[in-house]
Amino acid sequence: MNYFKLIISYDGTNFYGYQRQKAKRTIQQEIEKAITKITTEEINLISAGRTDKGVHSTYQVANFKTKIDITTTKLQQALNTYLPKDIHIKEVINTNESFHSRYDAKEKTYKYLLNENEYNVHERNYVYQYNKKLNINEMIKAKQYLIGTHEFDSFVTQNEKQTTKRTIKEINIKRENNQLIFTFTGDGFLKYQVRNMIGILIKVGEEKLTPQQVKEILEIKDRSKAPKMVPPEGLYLINIKY
Amino acid sequence: MNYFKLIISYDGTNFYGYQRQKAKRTIQQEIEKAITKITTEEINLISAGRTDKGVHSTYQVANFKTKIDITTTKLQQALNTYLPKDIHIKEVINTNESFHSRYDAKEKTYKYLLNENEYNVHERNYVYQYNKKLNINEMIKAKQYLIGTHEFDSFVTQNEKQTTKRTIKEINIKRENNQLIFTFTGDGFLKYQVRNMIGILIKVGEEKLTPQQVKEILEIKDRSKAPKMVPPEGLYLINIKY
Repeated sequence: MNYFKLIISYDGTNFYGYQRQKAKRTIQQEIEKAITKITTEEINLISAGRTDKGVHSTYQVANFKTKIDITTTKLQQALNTYLPKDIHIKEVINTNESFHSRYDAKEKTYKYLLNENEYNVHERNYVYQYNKKLNINEMIKAKQYLIGTHEFDSFVTQNEKQTTKRTIKEINIKRENNQLIFTFTGDGFLKYQVRNMIGILIKVGEEKLTPQQVKEILEIKDRSKAPKMVPPEGLYLINIKY
Repeated sequence: MNYFKLIISYDGTNFYGYQRQKAKRTIQQEIEKAITKITTEEINLISAGRTDKGVHSTYQVANFKTKIDITTTKLQQALNTYLPKDIHIKEVINTNESFHSRYDAKEKTYKYLLNENEYNVHERNYVYQYNKKLNINEMIKAKQYLIGTHEFDSFVTQNEKQTTKRTIKEINIKRENNQLIFTFTGDGFLKYQVRNMIGILIKVGEEKLTPQQVKEILEIKDRSKAPKMVPPEGLYLINIKY
């Protein structure tokens, strides 16, 4: 048996998210189909995490096993030949039976892009077109309350998991050429968690909530008390550490 | 009668070019439809120039007349409400009967983006994914021969016009973050002229042609002697001077 790890980038615009779904175009399905074309085997691709409809990645990690012998270079070339233009295999690495993309992931980083300037047609699927100025200093004060280990019930839209406890190691917010760039690093994120947290930070940036209220809403552990989430097109999974 | 001038940006990806065509989605048609919704009049939109299928703009100029009275602010808002997401009216300006977007244009500038790095899924419709390094110094030597007044027959794919004589005032080529940015400024460009000129400059960057050969091919005035043009997705109309 041969074990491979893939580093994948994709444009989420025209997908119903990462995870395999019946009769819907998903990233997992497209990659599994491409691997099957090469190996003629049924493939179960394991990946570090699911991204939602419209969400992008520049660094998703997935792994699979196959009976066929193929070099990493040839496998990468063949995959990129068979895959549609909105998925790209950046790297193929030999691994072993014990590696599991999801269970072994120690840390994930997401990036979110927001345009404070005029509507930009060319970036409409890649940057949230917010098109107004935000108070970045207030947002930087507010983000401090989200860092650390908390139960994130107020920022989880649907939770099928037992615990909402997660640890956020770092949140950065910076302005570059009238674009706000948010980065979130943590041990893992729950469904819609990043987009919900940015939703509340924007309310602070609009001066409709104070930084202190972010702390209060976090502690109340009630989704209905927090503002709505931001749209998917600004979000990118950009790193996973093992 | 009221006379308006529009400054327009658009994402050319999902259009069959700028100019109205039967049963095809074009930029002119979409804008005319939107104006008709507001004015209930048949509109003939005059514009500075046509861009081809897949070509973008951040600064296209067009003008039209209408019997209705409307402020520029309201007209802009209404247009952006009715227009699809891949067209955006950046500005609406009051003008007069004598203004003609095409005849009055004195100078146009186009930009072309080329990615020398790895394939980028998120930029595949906005930057030519060339994905190899080019010799920029040789290209800079070669571009000198294209500047000035010449008959550009070797770089015109289809010419319905009488003369191929055009004046190029400036060509710039620079590298920024592994992206090559070409800009061309001139009194006007013929069909596919910019993309054909970049096609030959790339051959020089690949060291398959010398800068001197660009001069020879220009002077031979024969399209069949010049290399193929570059694809449309890297091209942007970025300025028009009156």
